[in-house]
Amino acid sequence: MPNLTIETLARALDATFEGDGSLVISHPVHPDDAHQSGAVAVATSPEFVAKLKDAKAAVLAEGTDWQALGLKAAIFVGRPRYALSGVTFAFAHEIDLRAGIHPSAFVDPTAQLGEGVAVGPFAYIGARASVGAGSRILPHVSVGANARIGDDALIHPGVRIGERVALGARVIIHPNAVIGADGFSFVTPQMGAVEAAKASGGSTSDIQNTSLVRIHSLGAVALGDDVEIGACTTIDRGTLTDTRVGNGTKLDNQVQIGHNVQIGETCMLCAQVGIAGSAVIGDRVVLGGKVGVADHITIGSDVLVGAASAVATNIPSRNIMMGVPAVKRDEALRSIMAMRRLPRLFDTVDALKKRLDASKE
Amino acid sequence: MPNLTIETLARALDATFEGDGSLVISHPVHPDDAHQSGAVAVATSPEFVAKLKDAKAAVLAEGTDWQALGLKAAIFVGRPRYALSGVTFAFAHEIDLRAGIHPSAFVDPTAQLGEGVAVGPFAYIGARASVGAGSRILPHVSVGANARIGDDALIHPGVRIGERVALGARVIIHPNAVIGADGFSFVTPQMGAVEAAKASGGSTSDIQNTSLVRIHSLGAVALGDDVEIGACTTIDRGTLTDTRVGNGTKLDNQVQIGHNVQIGETCMLCAQVGIAGSAVIGDRVVLGGKVGVADHITIGSDVLVGAASAVATNIPSRNIMMGVPAVKRDEALRSIMAMRRLPRLFDTVDALKKRLDASKE
Amino acid sequence: MPNLTIETLARALDATFEGDGSLVISHPVHPDDAHQSGAVAVATSPEFVAKLKDAKAAVLAEGTDWQALGLKAAIFVGRPRYALSGVTFAFAHEIDLRAGIHPSAFVDPTAQLGEGVAVGPFAYIGARASVGAGSRILPHVSVGANARIGDDALIHPGVRIGERVALGARVIIHPNAVIGADGFSFVTPQMGAVEAAKASGGSTSDIQNTSLVRIHSLGAVALGDDVEIGACTTIDRGTLTDTRVGNGTKLDNQVQIGHNVQIGETCMLCAQVGIAGSAVIGDRVVLGGKVGVADHITIGSDVLVGAASAVATNIPSRNIMMGVPAVKRDEALRSIMAMRRLPRLFDTVDALKKRLDASKE
Repeated sequence: MPNLTIETLARALDATFEGDGSLVISHPVHPDDAHQSGAVAVATSPEFVAKLKDAKAAVLAEGTDWQALGLKAAIFVGRPRYALSGVTFAFAHEIDLRAGIHPSAFVDPTAQLGEGVAVGPFAYIGARASVGAGSRILPHVSVGANARIGDDALIHPGVRIGERVALGARVIIHPNAVIGADGFSFVTPQMGAVEAAKASGGSTSDIQNTSLVRIHSLGAVALGDDVEIGACTTIDRGTLTDTRVGNGTKLDNQVQIGHNVQIGETCMLCAQVGIAGSAVIGDRVVLGGKVGVADHITIGSDVLVGAASAVATNIPSRNIMMGVPAVKRDEALRSIMAMRRLPRLFDTVDALKKRLDASKE
Repeated sequence: MPNLTIETLARALDATFEGDGSLVISHPVHPDDAHQSGAVAVATSPEFVAKLKDAKAAVLAEGTDWQALGLKAAIFVGRPRYALSGVTFAFAHEIDLRAGIHPSAFVDPTAQLGEGVAVGPFAYIGARASVGAGSRILPHVSVGANARIGDDALIHPGVRIGERVALGARVIIHPNAVIGADGFSFVTPQMGAVEAAKASGGSTSDIQNTSLVRIHSLGAVALGDDVEIGACTTIDRGTLTDTRVGNGTKLDNQVQIGHNVQIGETCMLCAQVGIAGSAVIGDRVVLGGKVGVADHITIGSDVLVGAASAVATNIPSRNIMMGVPAVKRDEALRSIMAMRRLPRLFDTVDALKKRLDASKE
Repeated sequence: MPNLTIETLARALDATFEGDGSLVISHPVHPDDAHQSGAVAVATSPEFVAKLKDAKAAVLAEGTDWQALGLKAAIFVGRPRYALSGVTFAFAHEIDLRAGIHPSAFVDPTAQLGEGVAVGPFAYIGARASVGAGSRILPHVSVGANARIGDDALIHPGVRIGERVALGARVIIHPNAVIGADGFSFVTPQMGAVEAAKASGGSTSDIQNTSLVRIHSLGAVALGDDVEIGACTTIDRGTLTDTRVGNGTKLDNQVQIGHNVQIGETCMLCAQVGIAGSAVIGDRVVLGGKVGVADHITIGSDVLVGAASAVATNIPSRNIMMGVPAVKRDEALRSIMAMRRLPRLFDTVDALKKRLDASKE
C-alpha cells in the first residue's frame, strides 16, 4: 500500500479536510482499529464516531465535530459509506504482473493482443482470440479460440473463458470462474419424467427417462462493460443464442447462470445464487445469497429478493420478495409470524372445542 | 458452424422434408429469430408455430401446414423438442484442438495414450495414467497418477482428475470440475457434538468437539460411460470403496457429491445439488436445482425431487417430492396452500371465540 | 496401499490384538466386504459385527467375542469409529510427487522454499512468496506474490492462493479452491436499494441502484494451523483487515466465506455452506450442508446448525438450531409437526363453526 498525506487523500476523494493536511497515512482502518499508528479511520456510520477517541485521523460525515474527538486531521464527505470506495481505491495494492507475455505463457500466433496487455505464467490464449488494450490475464487462465476480451479487463488465475465468449471493457473475473460451459440441456426420445410431472399435479409418475440425449450449446456468453464475476462462478452458453449479462452487473462467488439466461444492467447477485435456464432478469435487481430462480421465470427491474429464497413465479418490477417459494415480503413476514403462533392456535382451537362440548351438555 | 442444405439436415435427423431441399441453412434459430437470413427455425412447441410468418425454413411437428406459413422448405419430425438435439448436433462447433500432444503439455513417460488422443496446452498427465483412443484433454487439465480415462472422452480446461480415478467412455467433464477430492470425514477422540445431537432431540448440547481427526479417503471415484459432469462440480473419493456414478447420468454445474455416494444410471442432477456422504440414489432420478440430500439416505428409482427441496428421509421409487423437508408433492402443495390461508384462520378462530364468549353471556 | 500385518497395524493404532499377529492385510474394508481376500473389516458400530461371519480379520470394540466370529485375528480398540482414522492413515496412498521443483514449474527467483518442498508440474510461485519446509504444491497451483504457506502443507491441483494470503502449518487445500478473491462489496453514490429495503419493512421500493461502485479489498486471508479446505471452496479477502479461519477448522467442498468473516477453531462447515460478509463464528461450531449465515451475524461457540438452515439472527453458545429462518431445534420440530397437522386444523375449525351456527339456530 502507498503512503498518502491527508491532503492527497482528501483530493483523491474530491473532499475537504481540516487540521494537519501533511499528516502521513499508511493505511485505512475500521474505527475499532483507530488507535493504530499511521491509520486513518473511516466512520462509515454515525455509531462508529464514538470509537474514534484514540484516532489521529478520520474520514467523517460532514458536520461532525472533529476537534471534540481530539483528531489531528479529518476529511469530510457527504456519505462516508460511499467514501470507502474511494479510500480503498487510493490504498489498493498493485497486482504483481507487468505488461508483456510471460515466457511460460502460450499465445496462439493468430491471437491479437492490444497495447500494454499482460499475459501471466502458464496462461493460454487460443487461436483468433483478442485481448483489449491494458488487459491483464493472470496465471493459468485459458482463453478459448475466437474469444474476445475488451480493454482494461482483469482476469484472475485459473479462469476459463470458453471459445467465442465475449467480454466487455473493464470486466473483472475472479479465480477459477467459468464463462461458457455447455448448457445442461437434455431431451428424452419420448415424453420425459419432468415433462410428465409438470403436466400432472400428483406425487407419483409412471414415465421413465429411458435415455438422455444432449442438446448442444451453439450460443456463447456475452458479458457487458464493467461486469464483475466472482470466484468459481459458472455461466453457461445459450442453446441457439448467447447467454447475456448487462453492463455494470456484479456476480458474487459460486453463482450459477444457466443457458439462455438474460440479466440486465447494474444487478447484484450474491454468493451461491442459481438462475435456471432461460430466465430473464431486469435492471438493478438484487438477489440475496443462495437465492434460486426457476427456469423460464421473468423478474422485472428494481426487484429485491431476500437471501435463501426460491423464486418460482414471475415477479413484476419494484417488488421486495422473500421465502420458499418467494412471495411479497409483507406476506412472507406474516407467514413467519403465523408459524410462530401456530402451536398456540392448536391449543386455542382445542379449548374452544371443549367449551362448545361443555355448553352442549 | 457448417452450412447445410435442408435435404442434408433432414437426412441427419432421419426426417422427411417438403419444399426446396437445396435451400442453404447457416444456423438454427428460436422461432423469435425466424426472420434471420440463412436461419432454420425449430418450433419445439405448437405455440411457436404462429411466430414463423417471416421464416423461410423450419423444423415442424408432422402434420403442420407448412405452406400456409409461407415457408420455402420444412422438415417434419415426430417430436420437435427431441429434434433439437439432432439439429444442434448437426451445427455444433468444432473444438479447436487437434490430435497429438501440445508442445507445452507434460505427459509422464509411463502414461499411456490411445490412438488419436489430443492433449492441450499446459495439460498434465501423471504416471501410469491411461487415456483412451480419441479422447481430448483440453488446456490446464491435471490427470493424476494411475487415473484411467475411457475412449472418446472430452475433458474441458482446468478439470482435476485425481489419482486412481476411473472414467468411462464418452464422458464429458466441464471446466474446473474436480473428480476425486478427499471426503469430508473427521472423527473426534470421544463422542462428538454431532453424534450427541443426533442422539438427543433437544436444542442445547454439552458435548464439545475437542479435536477433529481425519479419516483418509482410500477409495477413488468411478464414473460410468456417457456421464456428463458440469463446471465446478466436485465429487469426493470414497473412504474404503469408490464413489460411483452410473452410465448415462448427467450432473449440472456446482453439484457436490460426498464420499461413498452411489448414483445409478440415467439420472439428472441439476445445478447446485448437494448429496451428503454415503447416500444411495437409484436409476432415472431427477433432482431439481439446489436440492440437498442428507447423508446415508436411500432414494429409489424414477424419483423426482423439486428444486430447492431438502431430502431428509428415504424415498421409495416412483415418487414426486418437494419441500423443506421434502414430502410427497401433494402434501407439499397442501401445506403451501394452508400457509397462505393461515393468517385468515387466526381471524376465524378469534371470531369463533368471540361468538362463544357472547353466547355464554 | 502398503501391506501390513495385524501386529503392525495394532501397534500403529496403539491397540491390542488377539490371534495371528503375522496375518498379512492388504486393505481395510467395510463389514459388507469382509469376505474379501487380504481384508481387515472395521466394525465402526455394534450393528456391523453380525456381518463379519466371512471375515478373517477385524477391528472391534473392546470386549467383542472375536473367536465366536471365527476370525483368525482381531484388533481391539476403545472407539472403533475413531480407529478408522488410524486405519485409513496406515493404509493411505502416497501422493505421486517428489521433493524438488518440477522442470515445468515456475518459481519466482525471489520466492523462498523451505527444505524438502515439492513443486509440481505447471505450478507457479510468485515474487517474495514463501513455502514452509516439507510442503507439497501440486500441479497447476498459483501462489500469489507475498503469500506465505506454513510447513508440511498440501496444496492440491488448481488451487489459487492470492497475493499476501497466509496459511498455517499442515494446511490441506483441495483442488480448485480459491483463497483470497476480492470481497463482494459495492456501494451506491446515494442510498441504495438494499439499504432502503432494510430500513423499510414493506414489499415495494422506490429506491434504485443507479450505479455500483467497488469497495476494494485491502485485507488478505489468514488460515490457522491444521485447517482443511474443500474443493472449489472460496474465501474472500477482508476489506481493511484479514478474513480469518482458526486452527483446526475444516471446510468442506463449495463453501463460500465472505469478506471480513472471522471463524474460530475446530469448526466443521459442511458442503455448500455460505457465510456472508463480516459474520463472526465461535469455536467448535458445526454447520450442516447448505447452511446460510447472513452478514454481520454472530454465532457463539459449540453451536450446531442443521443442514439447509438459514441463520438470520445471532445465536448464543451451546445451541442446536435448524430451519429457514433457523430457530432452536425444539421449536423447529414443533413447527414441522404443526405444519403436518395444519390441513386438519382447518377442518376442525370449520366443524366448530358449523356446530356454533347450528347451536345458534
